[in-house]
Amino acid sequence: MLKKLDFYFDVGSPTAYLAYQKLLQMKSIYDFKLIYIPVLLGGIFKLTGNQSPALIPAKGRYMELFDLPRFAKLYNTSFKSNPHFPVNTLSLMRGAIAAQEMTCLNEYINCVFKALWVKQLDMGDPKIVADELEKNGIDYNAIIQLAQSKPIKTKLIDNTQQSVDRGVFGAPTFFIGEEMYFGQDRLQMIETLLIEDREQTESLVK
Amino acid sequence: MLKKLDFYFDVGSPTAYLAYQKLLQMKSIYDFKLIYIPVLLGGIFKLTGNQSPALIPAKGRYMELFDLPRFAKLYNTSFKSNPHFPVNTLSLMRGAIAAQEMTCLNEYINCVFKALWVKQLDMGDPKIVADELEKNGIDYNAIIQLAQSKPIKTKLIDNTQQSVDRGVFGAPTFFIGEEMYFGQDRLQMIETLLIEDREQTESLVK
Repeated sequence: MLKKLDFYFDVGSPTAYLAYQKLLQMKSIYDFKLIYIPVLLGGIFKLTGNQSPALIPAKGRYMELFDLPRFAKLYNTSFKSNPHFPVNTLSLMRGAIAAQEMTCLNEYINCVFKALWVKQLDMGDPKIVADELEKNGIDYNAIIQLAQSKPIKTKLIDNTQQSVDRGVFGAPTFFIGEEMYFGQDRLQMIETLLIEDREQTESLVK
Repeated sequence: MLKKLDFYFDVGSPTAYLAYQKLLQMKSIYDFKLIYIPVLLGGIFKLTGNQSPALIPAKGRYMELFDLPRFAKLYNTSFKSNPHFPVNTLSLMRGAIAAQEMTCLNEYINCVFKALWVKQLDMGDPKIVADELEKNGIDYNAIIQLAQSKPIKTKLIDNTQQSVDRGVFGAPTFFIGEEMYFGQDRLQMIETLLIEDREQTESLVK
């Protein structure tokens, strides 16, 4: 049975970036439907009483020094901490919804995630955002104009509220049906399910 | 090279219980030195500004409904949530230090972990603790008498402070040298290191 995987993300989360990299690799190997659902992590935190793990200094140090580099290595992907962290991602996530409408979400988040977590840029600065998007062939003016429209703003609020209604308290979060998985590190469990799916399909074909 | 693994734990943490179960399995397969370091999780939280994930209701629900049962299944071990959670573990952890002095730590934590996370008992009640220890052949009176002595109380405070000085902000936490790993789910990475160690040793023997 083809699995449908919902991926709740905010580009401001380094673990959402790692999840995205791992998901791209998984997409190239396994047959499943990946549904991108842009949410505002700051909104989720407010709605659930949760907070960024980086606000606990010892936890932030551990993640930066040990945990994030280990998973970047495991996924064989580039990763650098962002000196401008935490970034207010409201504009960037409205931009993600706009990009989704314009059917260029993949190009958009690929560009924004790399700008934040490889190039270490200050993506709170609209000039830098414009420059990065244009360099990647994405029409910044079209994105920003659409991102400021009422339906896009409402869509981001709705996505965020609906995620919390479903049980989300942080990002990245994944769902297969109503089975919830929190954290990029749970993709290993999801990969195991995809492998089992593939084996079942292969045995049916034989 | 034989690895030495430091295991910081508090019996009141369900993830420390899962880690303990997984560590027992790993000990039966791999050659490494396991150092038990009892700490007071409440003390760590106070010293670092951290708090129990269960205090975020949505996170608590997710852990109880999805995350803890999944790892219990993965480790092929029994697990039930404890209705008396969170338990004040001060006496139990002083008891762990006392048991360590009396060289019956393994028997003690095996009994206490199971009472909490399989039998769902109220281990804040001294009568229940006495009953469980005695049933497992552990001298409750000897433990409790030693646990109330100054050196034992000081040792628990010292372990807790030293863990925080080393970077610990929660439990379970593991160290291999100065490489820190937080969370029972990171034992998978540690297992990979132990497998590499074993392969290196085997190739040296050949």
